[in-house]
Amino acid sequence: MFVSFLSDYGNEDEFVGVCHGVIARRCPEARVIDLDHAIPRHDVLAGALTLASAVGFLPAGVLLAVVDPGVGTDRRALALRSGRGGYHLVGPDNGLLMAAAERLGGVAEAVEIGDSPERLVPTSSTFHGRDVFAPVAAALAAGEALADLGEPVRAEELVRLELPSADPVSGGLLAHVIHRDGFGNLVLDATPRQLEALGAPTGSVGVVCDGHRHEALVAPSFGFAPEGRLLLYEDSRGSLALAVNRGSAAELVGAGRGDEVLLEAP
Amino acid sequence: MFVSFLSDYGNEDEFVGVCHGVIARRCPEARVIDLDHAIPRHDVLAGALTLASAVGFLPAGVLLAVVDPGVGTDRRALALRSGRGGYHLVGPDNGLLMAAAERLGGVAEAVEIGDSPERLVPTSSTFHGRDVFAPVAAALAAGEALADLGEPVRAEELVRLELPSADPVSGGLLAHVIHRDGFGNLVLDATPRQLEALGAPTGSVGVVCDGHRHEALVAPSFGFAPEGRLLLYEDSRGSLALAVNRGSAAELVGAGRGDEVLLEAP
Amino acid sequence: MFVSFLSDYGNEDEFVGVCHGVIARRCPEARVIDLDHAIPRHDVLAGALTLASAVGFLPAGVLLAVVDPGVGTDRRALALRSGRGGYHLVGPDNGLLMAAAERLGGVAEAVEIGDSPERLVPTSSTFHGRDVFAPVAAALAAGEALADLGEPVRAEELVRLELPSADPVSGGLLAHVIHRDGFGNLVLDATPRQLEALGAPTGSVGVVCDGHRHEALVAPSFGFAPEGRLLLYEDSRGSLALAVNRGSAAELVGAGRGDEVLLEAP
Repeated sequence: MFVSFLSDYGNEDEFVGVCHGVIARRCPEARVIDLDHAIPRHDVLAGALTLASAVGFLPAGVLLAVVDPGVGTDRRALALRSGRGGYHLVGPDNGLLMAAAERLGGVAEAVEIGDSPERLVPTSSTFHGRDVFAPVAAALAAGEALADLGEPVRAEELVRLELPSADPVSGGLLAHVIHRDGFGNLVLDATPRQLEALGAPTGSVGVVCDGHRHEALVAPSFGFAPEGRLLLYEDSRGSLALAVNRGSAAELVGAGRGDEVLLEAP
Repeated sequence: MFVSFLSDYGNEDEFVGVCHGVIARRCPEARVIDLDHAIPRHDVLAGALTLASAVGFLPAGVLLAVVDPGVGTDRRALALRSGRGGYHLVGPDNGLLMAAAERLGGVAEAVEIGDSPERLVPTSSTFHGRDVFAPVAAALAAGEALADLGEPVRAEELVRLELPSADPVSGGLLAHVIHRDGFGNLVLDATPRQLEALGAPTGSVGVVCDGHRHEALVAPSFGFAPEGRLLLYEDSRGSLALAVNRGSAAELVGAGRGDEVLLEAP
Repeated sequence: MFVSFLSDYGNEDEFVGVCHGVIARRCPEARVIDLDHAIPRHDVLAGALTLASAVGFLPAGVLLAVVDPGVGTDRRALALRSGRGGYHLVGPDNGLLMAAAERLGGVAEAVEIGDSPERLVPTSSTFHGRDVFAPVAAALAAGEALADLGEPVRAEELVRLELPSADPVSGGLLAHVIHRDGFGNLVLDATPRQLEALGAPTGSVGVVCDGHRHEALVAPSFGFAPEGRLLLYEDSRGSLALAVNRGSAAELVGAGRGDEVLLEAP
């Protein structure tokens, strides 16, 4: 009866609170966890990566995710059941849910919920979080059967995103910034294993970004680097990330979401 | 036993969390929904409009609202019972609660709670959310009778706000921005019915703001407009609103809360 | 079974939500109160002062606090039991918990939890909120005995912070800004009693900051001062604070956290 909720609604408006209200009306016992509502607006990939990285730490129940640039158009609205763990996932059919679903054993069952009997009527054209997704999530939390909430869709028809991944190139490993967190840390689409394959740099590694070269200390955590020093570490998602102890890597190297970062071979 | 909580306390301080603590101490079973804490500071009208627009989506229980520029002065503190739905409303007597109360069948009973036996003592002069409003809201959630929480006040004595509304003028409909959301969408004090009365523009409508004229596509949702294009749509509150697909209407037309916007007759 | 949670994780990432998930998995009955997640990054003193000032308004249970610049280094991780009130406190051993513990009758029992059997394995080097502190807090909420969660530490060995306090000097009282809230109010490390000791100024008091002198009205709350006027008041924590009615004291006097403010003797 937990509903974990991620969106790009931000924390500056009543959108999240109104969805909480709708859930409470339909399923008063549901307990809502606000996973993250500061996904960059309309950034479906960022939402998908955040949801997938968090899913191992969330209680069984419903995952409600809304990053939905196509709201009100003919994109599908979905509710899914995962292959493992007894999770339901609810959100738009734009790839947002699929990386998380893969980590939960794939999609065992899917229904299209745009005309769900649970939706609020009248249904707005711009706020399906309130009118479609939250009511269906609440109904699932209340124990309704997925099959009763919409029309069946085959898993193969669902929209999937291409996930970014670092590539070995001559000179090193070409990675991309997949997330800039609130501390200015830059999460890369590269793993410690890929770094080892470069020839196991220890001590430090060259980092080239926007034509400039920096030297990053390879360290397990911020406190191992002097203040102001760039470091490369394995972050809490298991990805390589750049940070500056008590500073901002984003500012130091001048990079943000989507930018290329070359990690040099020794 | 739900308490829906709106304020201008922001998300950058402990004010909201401390009120949650006070509620939990008085009524551990109460479930608090954070509706919105980013109401612009001291903007009673904005708080009143947000609360009124959300009330149809909130569970029965207590509505706790604090936007209170007069805290510590002799303005009244209130707890109300609505005419319909079994809601209680708690907050300052500055009009904040009244638009929501109207949507709930008006005020059936009201008490002044500045000296409520439930208030925390000593009572600060600056944080009545913590010391007066949250304790009374928690007592109502715990089932206390309204009449035991303060001194009776007649509904006719309560402060009411004049709500803005668009006016037909020669040349079109003169509206005002009543809200700028976190996406830069501009909510107007005008309704789709008023737009129809202009002579039912279809396709697009002229929008004059700050001496500049823009052409807005009339569309049901963002995804129907090309990126960067201004559109006029019915928002999820039922008001007309201006948006830019994947952009900010506030930036494009250079307007914010309180500004005039002329929607031109065809 | 309440867990009150304070951190410097901000509201822009999934860090707080992931900790909620971890708590829900270990102790589904736990109710989490988000006290404040906008503590300035790595500002242990600010976190300690906020926690201590709030503790009297929080329900009995667990206080989980994470402001942890030394995460991943050999700083200790702690769980404590307070002398009074049946509170447990969980967080890093950098002084963050101690001012709150003092208000709860001191430390009755303490354990080091860096290798707690409750921690998540593998344990990251950078996110002990998720991997160490939240799981231990949840175990305590679930009723586990403190002694089973780590290795005993003597209370005398724990790190303590020196708390700032205003000093009488020739000419007045030399105070420091200990907090700037979201409204631009400046909280000082001075008390109304210290102001009285200056010779009980009434009406107004001289405030010298960064070489400039301002005249502040002494008043119980914002609404007693004309708009734009600087006032000195007793804030809701019981400290003296500077504010501007419907404005920002931080902007008016050009001061922020850590800056000196001289309150002049009459």
